[in-house]
Amino acid sequence: MSDLASRVEASIRDVPDFPKEGILFKDITPVLQHGQLFQEVTQFFAARCRDRGITKVVGIESRGFIFGAALAHELGVGLTLIRKPGKLPWDRVGVEYELEYGKDRVEMHVDGVSADDRVVLIDDLLATGGTAAASIDLIERVGGKVDEAVFLIELDFLEGRARLGDVDVYSLVHF
Amino acid sequence: MSDLASRVEASIRDVPDFPKEGILFKDITPVLQHGQLFQEVTQFFAARCRDRGITKVVGIESRGFIFGAALAHELGVGLTLIRKPGKLPWDRVGVEYELEYGKDRVEMHVDGVSADDRVVLIDDLLATGGTAAASIDLIERVGGKVDEAVFLIELDFLEGRARLGDVDVYSLVHF
Repeated sequence: MSDLASRVEASIRDVPDFPKEGILFKDITPVLQHGQLFQEVTQFFAARCRDRGITKVVGIESRGFIFGAALAHELGVGLTLIRKPGKLPWDRVGVEYELEYGKDRVEMHVDGVSADDRVVLIDDLLATGGTAAASIDLIERVGGKVDEAVFLIELDFLEGRARLGDVDVYSLVHF
Repeated sequence: MSDLASRVEASIRDVPDFPKEGILFKDITPVLQHGQLFQEVTQFFAARCRDRGITKVVGIESRGFIFGAALAHELGVGLTLIRKPGKLPWDRVGVEYELEYGKDRVEMHVDGVSADDRVVLIDDLLATGGTAAASIDLIERVGGKVDEAVFLIELDFLEGRARLGDVDVYSLVHF
């Protein structure tokens, strides 16, 4: 593991029984509160994106907004938001996806990505991959192409990356 | 008005009747999607923060996370989140505040701000000021001090800044 990944992993705080009993929640707020570490993470992601010619960052609500905004700023490229239903005001596309119990939905403005964009999709956590897969679907529906999906943390045992098709996936820290 | 403020104002998209009839929603997503403009906004806010010796950025869910994350990254200081109830996993403080109809609540981790921090509070919009006032209250409850509250947009006619006590307030664009 890289030195940066080790330091991020050491900063992540385990919170037992959140949001419900039996779940060990990975709290990333200590990473954000550590200014230098947060900056290093963003610079690391940005170096990958520069190598790949990324022209647009798409962040998933709401912790994906945090890493996405810092990354877009560092790269000087635009940030597009993928949000829960009812939050985006303008013309939008939406995708429903299955949860363990029930359904969820994500939405994106139709002008969020254009056909000539090279998109990086970003979120804090890749778990089962449902939200990320739906997000890739949204981007493709408006004619875009996801070059890479990037996560701070990946929960390997949930095998979420298998749901992301042929999109390249990179995660800094694995559990 | 500054040239930057003029360009931001020109990029903001008016969406009528959102989220409900009679409200003219100020959609900031075109500002975010314009990489150079988003970067300039962040650099402008960062210059203010450097002058004031800011050591911590506190962003309000969820569009405040976007401007806050980019700002914290640019400054190399930590980012602390103020969130809606049930989102933050660890030890937290919470404040309830009045809405036009009903109540709302915001929460912050107790380690989000320390007594020696110089804090900038950031959000996309200052409207009635209820959320921002509650956020200042949260920061003060853990012993912190808000040096300045910064917004992309201020709706002057709602007089929100009157609710923020003696905290300095800066907004880039006024309606």
